[in-house]
Amino acid sequence: MTTMTTMKSISYKNIASPKGFKATGIHCGIKHKKKDLALLVSEVPASVAGVFTTNAIQGAPLIVTKEVVQKTGKMQAIIINSGIANSCTGKQGIIDAYTMQEKTAEKLGIEPNLVGVASTGVIGEMMKMDSLIAGIQKLNPIDELEGAIGFAQAIMTTDTVTKNTSYKTIIDGKEVIIAGTAKGSGMIEPNMATMLGFISTDANIESNHLQEALKSITDITFNSITVDGDTSTNDMVIVMANGLAENNTLTPEHLDWANFVQTLHAVSQDLAKMIAKDGEGSTKLIEVEVQGAVTDAEARIVAKKVVGSPLVKTAIFGADANWGRIIAAVGYSGAKLDPYAITIYIGTTKVVENGEPVPFSEEDLFIYLKQHEVKIIVELHQGDGEGIAWGCDLTYDYVQINATYRS
Amino acid sequence: MTTMTTMKSISYKNIASPKGFKATGIHCGIKHKKKDLALLVSEVPASVAGVFTTNAIQGAPLIVTKEVVQKTGKMQAIIINSGIANSCTGKQGIIDAYTMQEKTAEKLGIEPNLVGVASTGVIGEMMKMDSLIAGIQKLNPIDELEGAIGFAQAIMTTDTVTKNTSYKTIIDGKEVIIAGTAKGSGMIEPNMATMLGFISTDANIESNHLQEALKSITDITFNSITVDGDTSTNDMVIVMANGLAENNTLTPEHLDWANFVQTLHAVSQDLAKMIAKDGEGSTKLIEVEVQGAVTDAEARIVAKKVVGSPLVKTAIFGADANWGRIIAAVGYSGAKLDPYAITIYIGTTKVVENGEPVPFSEEDLFIYLKQHEVKIIVELHQGDGEGIAWGCDLTYDYVQINATYRS
Repeated sequence: MTTMTTMKSISYKNIASPKGFKATGIHCGIKHKKKDLALLVSEVPASVAGVFTTNAIQGAPLIVTKEVVQKTGKMQAIIINSGIANSCTGKQGIIDAYTMQEKTAEKLGIEPNLVGVASTGVIGEMMKMDSLIAGIQKLNPIDELEGAIGFAQAIMTTDTVTKNTSYKTIIDGKEVIIAGTAKGSGMIEPNMATMLGFISTDANIESNHLQEALKSITDITFNSITVDGDTSTNDMVIVMANGLAENNTLTPEHLDWANFVQTLHAVSQDLAKMIAKDGEGSTKLIEVEVQGAVTDAEARIVAKKVVGSPLVKTAIFGADANWGRIIAAVGYSGAKLDPYAITIYIGTTKVVENGEPVPFSEEDLFIYLKQHEVKIIVELHQGDGEGIAWGCDLTYDYVQINATYRS
Repeated sequence: MTTMTTMKSISYKNIASPKGFKATGIHCGIKHKKKDLALLVSEVPASVAGVFTTNAIQGAPLIVTKEVVQKTGKMQAIIINSGIANSCTGKQGIIDAYTMQEKTAEKLGIEPNLVGVASTGVIGEMMKMDSLIAGIQKLNPIDELEGAIGFAQAIMTTDTVTKNTSYKTIIDGKEVIIAGTAKGSGMIEPNMATMLGFISTDANIESNHLQEALKSITDITFNSITVDGDTSTNDMVIVMANGLAENNTLTPEHLDWANFVQTLHAVSQDLAKMIAKDGEGSTKLIEVEVQGAVTDAEARIVAKKVVGSPLVKTAIFGADANWGRIIAAVGYSGAKLDPYAITIYIGTTKVVENGEPVPFSEEDLFIYLKQHEVKIIVELHQGDGEGIAWGCDLTYDYVQINATYRS
């Protein structure tokens, strides 16, 4: 990983940027006014990888999309609606998801089993199929920024901003782009991603290796964010790689494998942090880094417990350096620890050393905690495990948004 | 359990009611104005049982009180302060907790190892020992309602109401009273009780059997509530049984054993529900009952996931019958389930049957959800396991209280 040659791209922040990808988003009538139907399509069938919610209740679209990912390993297009999740909608819901797939395939003139389906919104409502089918007919994907913006807007629910990122890298002397768009703002807790994420790339790679790459970075990106601890029924992250960059096929033995994985990691981490930062009602991004756990996995568990604690989240909303709540969350995380070996920093200020308070300037920390990005570091001194988790503060607006979501 | 002869007492709602118990609560100067120092004392040494937080970080008072419970099995008094938790206070904190024990013993003229210590409040601040020691000198416990009220008030932090209950029963023809007082409002999540609970009884029982009785009901009472998922460092429930009712010593073989356990259960459940209802900022008590799980333990896990979901809590605050969030929480609980076998009721209204929506009157449920006690029933149809959990809604006031707690 030390030979990383990726560069963050400024000019390619758009899911339609990798060669051969087009996108669009329109209003079809599921929501009152806002865009609610999105399409991402590749010129040629792409290798596909996907990770899906671990919730035992899964929305109908996941049945359809898992089938595409697992049976064929190829996807050429994915159709997404927002407003209705098509979850807990029984057999009719499954029929509706397959109809979305078929109608999109018809419109594009491709095989239905090359089309993925995703939905996000209210659980338990039936899809408005008339609006949806009419909407599909109107879709006109383009490889320009406008299409990508429409796509990003049309997958939003309570999101306040679109979430896009992209990187380019060089593989076999060829320019390869990896671009991603995500939505997610509430009902956000691993596992898995508890959100929708779509990543396009023109890299040349088979689906089994693409799946391997995606899985290797899911836990440290999408599964390391939490907004409210609620795991959705509809989450998925899909990566489509259409090979049009014409690099030699990527495998773990390829010299640029680590480079590719690291670039995919960068895209995924950007999207994960954007989702955490845009958590419902949030005013700031919280990053918790845990060092010195017995294992990396245990470090991530501790980091997620701290960043997920309602008491930590409200304290940070109030810019209150209440480290007692941080150490309490560390304590109930279940991780191996010695209370007298814990050191905690808020920003760069040490507030706890060896489990005991360290005097600090409340005023300085108040100013620090007023910022839009807050970092907490916890050192356990039990081993070499480290991990990071991202979340957001808990605010009046979270309550307001969720007390009135369906109204 | 069918031979239960307990009667809920109206007139004995007070921890000083069992024979030989006295209580008091005063202001000693840890808080600005409110009462902050409480004492419960028995005329004679009592058998004692206790359950304590499972948080790996534990406040200094727990070290002292566990020693009393585990070493001697006898306790005659317990001293409690609110305002400062004496947690994460290092060696000085432990010295301070032992000093609280010693000074209380001196004041009462009894052995220090018969005195328990409990604290609740801000983590990481050092005890104000001068105020505390001066306060201990002033304590004057009485066996009247006034003393019990003072006791209940002095253990409160963000609680808005005192929490008291009591029952009387007949054992061997003798009247036995079990009375309890609790505090707890935030940082409330099993395990264990994540709160302070004190139960006095004049029953005659050895400490090992008292511990057995307490443990048998902890999971289905104190460990079945959640306010915010945060497990405190200082929680404990203590039961003191001084034997002055003069019944024959209670053992599991005693004919009235089930009666005693059931009465203790009633006291504990009352206190647990009062704590849930008084959750920080809450406007209503939520009871979630799960039936048809594979085991009782799994039913409780599902019930706690539902009642602990921020999205369910905010929906109920908003009186929104958003059952999609309920079923999503059931789904991520980890329990064995079949999505197409789930039935859900809100109050007496069926909203989901076999995993699919059932039409219902939104208006009727809006009116139901506006009440101060809300019940949700989830049927899994996987087995005979059942369980109940209690919690509260998530409101603007929760955020307000916790964004400004130390300020």
